[in-house]
Amino acid sequence: MNDASGPPDLDAIERASARLAPWIHRTPVLTSRTLDALTGGTIFLKAENLQKIGAFKIRGAMNALLQLDEASCAKGVVTHSSGNHAQALALAGKQLGVPVCVVMPRTAPVIKKQATEGYGAKVVPCEPTLASREETVERLIAEHGYTLVHPFDNWHVVEGQATASWELLDQASPLDIVIAPVGGGGLLAGTAITVNGKSPSTQVIGAEPKNADDAQRSLVSGKIEPSHDPKTIADGLRTSLGERTFAVIKHKVDAIVTATEPEILDAARFVWERFKVIIEPSSAVAVAPLFNGAIDARGKRVGVIISGGNVDLEPLFQAWAAKIVD
Amino acid sequence: MNDASGPPDLDAIERASARLAPWIHRTPVLTSRTLDALTGGTIFLKAENLQKIGAFKIRGAMNALLQLDEASCAKGVVTHSSGNHAQALALAGKQLGVPVCVVMPRTAPVIKKQATEGYGAKVVPCEPTLASREETVERLIAEHGYTLVHPFDNWHVVEGQATASWELLDQASPLDIVIAPVGGGGLLAGTAITVNGKSPSTQVIGAEPKNADDAQRSLVSGKIEPSHDPKTIADGLRTSLGERTFAVIKHKVDAIVTATEPEILDAARFVWERFKVIIEPSSAVAVAPLFNGAIDARGKRVGVIISGGNVDLEPLFQAWAAKIVD
Repeated sequence: MNDASGPPDLDAIERASARLAPWIHRTPVLTSRTLDALTGGTIFLKAENLQKIGAFKIRGAMNALLQLDEASCAKGVVTHSSGNHAQALALAGKQLGVPVCVVMPRTAPVIKKQATEGYGAKVVPCEPTLASREETVERLIAEHGYTLVHPFDNWHVVEGQATASWELLDQASPLDIVIAPVGGGGLLAGTAITVNGKSPSTQVIGAEPKNADDAQRSLVSGKIEPSHDPKTIADGLRTSLGERTFAVIKHKVDAIVTATEPEILDAARFVWERFKVIIEPSSAVAVAPLFNGAIDARGKRVGVIISGGNVDLEPLFQAWAAKIVD
Repeated sequence: MNDASGPPDLDAIERASARLAPWIHRTPVLTSRTLDALTGGTIFLKAENLQKIGAFKIRGAMNALLQLDEASCAKGVVTHSSGNHAQALALAGKQLGVPVCVVMPRTAPVIKKQATEGYGAKVVPCEPTLASREETVERLIAEHGYTLVHPFDNWHVVEGQATASWELLDQASPLDIVIAPVGGGGLLAGTAITVNGKSPSTQVIGAEPKNADDAQRSLVSGKIEPSHDPKTIADGLRTSLGERTFAVIKHKVDAIVTATEPEILDAARFVWERFKVIIEPSSAVAVAPLFNGAIDARGKRVGVIISGGNVDLEPLFQAWAAKIVD
């Protein structure tokens, strides 16, 4: 496994920012007077939906590959994901000439498989169970000598994700609060390390679906409390915390807040309509607490990491296609 | 009628840019390596979908109101529109304290009426015929002393719309081609004056739906050839040219190109998926000619004015809402 021995410190994150600069976009920070008026605060959306592959995940994936030794690069890497990490690792591998293999459940949408293959990665199907996934990954590592690049429970990945809030602090400081969505916790852990180090008085808050509130429960009990097959429209946040990410989050995150499914949709709709940018439901989870009372933004400067914009637009384009006369 | 005696010149457009600066956004110019690779050119999208009210129309409406004398401001203004001009004039009036009345066909979507009223304008219904619309506007002018602010056939409006390409040339020069969508022609006429004046070697091309190709036919015949109730998904471009806009367009526009309905949808989808921003079908009309062979962008720097991003997102959010479990 390609990994560091412990969590990155601020210097490591600064080096990662420099290392990643040629490979990723420095995404803009978006603002809206309407959002400010509604919340009473000054809100800054860090638009990682406008990042390469449409999500922050390219940061962690690229950072991991850029630190892989030459022999491991030649053999290639493997991961398990049917989401943005799969495409991120595939693109990073393509750009750096590292073979990428992605283990994906047979039940994953065809579009996800095609997108990943479109970047030149090999997709290996597994059964939609944890056992099958782990077994398949282990077998591929044994057969090919692949290096595992875990989607979140990997310090190089956490370090890469940490660079999003590094940029945000450059672009929008001083901030009273930074909100990041939490699924496996790679983005939130990275955000917490950056913000705690660079701006100690800024609160770091994680946001997750009420229907997948494992991080909140874990923070309360002091140990990882996984969600089992949670039902949420925020498909990027169905994963539970990992050991590494939880170790950071329990010490460095001030609170975990939640949003119900209707609240998530309302927040998504608000951003689509007012900002005219496409965000995933998983990103809307971090906006919803500004509206549902979980976070009081009045008089505060609040940064929100908009994690991605990869959504299935088919329903909309089908509705349009049904209307055309040609 | 509030109007100038003839088309604005470059100095007037420069003054309009300064006049509008405090009231509008200087919208960004978006680029994509994928779009450049696919077209062989270097493409710059002037993102007026990120403008206030989600469309360039605020430029012309605000510019017209800013040049209205005090007595006329006190009496108020009237227009006819069920589209972006209605909301633009309503917002401009609200910000400047000018009463706004909008004549809208009874058949217009409720959401358009509500959006216009939401900015404090009065909406007066008419029958969905030209005769009823004109009669209603005339009656309101006679009764209230309103000043008509036509959606496009008004020199102050053309002058305001011209400021979008003024900014684009600042942001992306030198350009070989500038493409703007054409409905009533306010945006295209303004674009043509700016670009001809500021960058004479740059070609100006109008783009319209094949199903509403009145501008192309008018340019060929040399007189206004209206479309009658054209069927196109690009609802902002169903209008035909006006006298003033045609007078400019016939002398200053190099070509009018068209796109079929499926080509419009494909272009919209490309921009949504790759840029993660929401554009209207009317804006996609100006992107489609880069893909359908009408414009050869190879080796060229091409600016495209993305006119707006106001679309009905209901089908998508309904599909999401149907999936939630809460």
